[in-house]
Amino acid sequence: MLLRQLFDQESSTYTYLIADVGARQAALVDPVLGQVERDLKLVAELGLELTHVLETHVHADHVTSAGVLRERTGAKTHASASGAPCVDVHLQHGDVVRVGEVVITALATPGHTDDGMSFAVSGHVLTGDTLLIRGCGRADFQNGNPEALFESITGVLFALPDATVVLPAHDYKGMTSSTIGEEKALNPRVVGKTKAEFVGLMNGLKLPPPKHLDVAVPANRACGNVTPES
Amino acid sequence: MLLRQLFDQESSTYTYLIADVGARQAALVDPVLGQVERDLKLVAELGLELTHVLETHVHADHVTSAGVLRERTGAKTHASASGAPCVDVHLQHGDVVRVGEVVITALATPGHTDDGMSFAVSGHVLTGDTLLIRGCGRADFQNGNPEALFESITGVLFALPDATVVLPAHDYKGMTSSTIGEEKALNPRVVGKTKAEFVGLMNGLKLPPPKHLDVAVPANRACGNVTPES
Repeated sequence: MLLRQLFDQESSTYTYLIADVGARQAALVDPVLGQVERDLKLVAELGLELTHVLETHVHADHVTSAGVLRERTGAKTHASASGAPCVDVHLQHGDVVRVGEVVITALATPGHTDDGMSFAVSGHVLTGDTLLIRGCGRADFQNGNPEALFESITGVLFALPDATVVLPAHDYKGMTSSTIGEEKALNPRVVGKTKAEFVGLMNGLKLPPPKHLDVAVPANRACGNVTPES
Repeated sequence: MLLRQLFDQESSTYTYLIADVGARQAALVDPVLGQVERDLKLVAELGLELTHVLETHVHADHVTSAGVLRERTGAKTHASASGAPCVDVHLQHGDVVRVGEVVITALATPGHTDDGMSFAVSGHVLTGDTLLIRGCGRADFQNGNPEALFESITGVLFALPDATVVLPAHDYKGMTSSTIGEEKALNPRVVGKTKAEFVGLMNGLKLPPPKHLDVAVPANRACGNVTPES
């Protein structure tokens, strides 16, 4: 298996390339529209065929390249059944996506948004905006729900082995990875907190709306095709 | 072994934390002055003691935190014998640095600067500015030498196993890692080029001077203590 992290500086988004090099099949997770040429070049350089695009959720901070990638490569888009209507394959908790022989398991982790999914693959978990390094996504828009977020972090993700490498969809401080064990011990949003305390914390954040919310959410519900017919 | 990549957005520098978790000893490679609090916090959170600071070269694009880290933790600074006079341990090609049981081998890779060193550790190589992902450092200042750079890339680094993970000191496109095999096949600076062609390419780049050259180089020769007596 090849697993490679890619970064978009403008939105501080991590995209992940996951591939079965032998089978030459590849998936991109949370690809960013402005990076489509970089990502397709890398896939081609490595002699891979892009067969899958996965989204951890409908993003509010950048526009996905999922639709463009589908048009240009034929890759099938995958996301939660609660998410964007444009995707090809709607995932439920426990569903398995096979990229060649690489097995990716979808874990429903709602709370930041109602369609949040994490993807477990070979000792790693791609946590989207559900679990960030020493943080978590906000829960105050897009049907966010702090109770659900607490359950997703502490009930679903923290049930994974401590050594599991945490690969989030964003980081704003230059951290690139963590582990489940580290976040269980060190994540200030949840360590030592009851669900009620977490909900109180999240409801008290009073964050401004994301800068690109009004553009990004409708675009991403159309898989990044800003003109859905295009 | 723990090996973690950290990113400084301002200078697009990758810093690496390498640790023997059992022995609780840690090294930082190419730490950035503006990130000293983040880096020390991470070391402390993981229950580690910072025992080593390594520099791949005297940087021209950011100021190192090596001196501050030495003052605050007692860590010993390590770099090429051709580099900054302020460091504690001057390394030669083939020297071994032990961080607990983790063995880091210094490889002299001059050319970007005359003091360039790469560090091989457990299937990875930290290549500084000698070998970048699909690129390489410039060779037109700080005693840079394109002939030496060609030899360092093709003679020293490309002699490592193809599967070796390449971890550079910078990337400007959001790429985080590569492999020796990938760079041998895909690096446009060297693939299919003779040494003379590479030298001609490098001498023809006509790049503007680095923005922070006049500040960073003297500061880094003093291990980042801008006032050396401080």
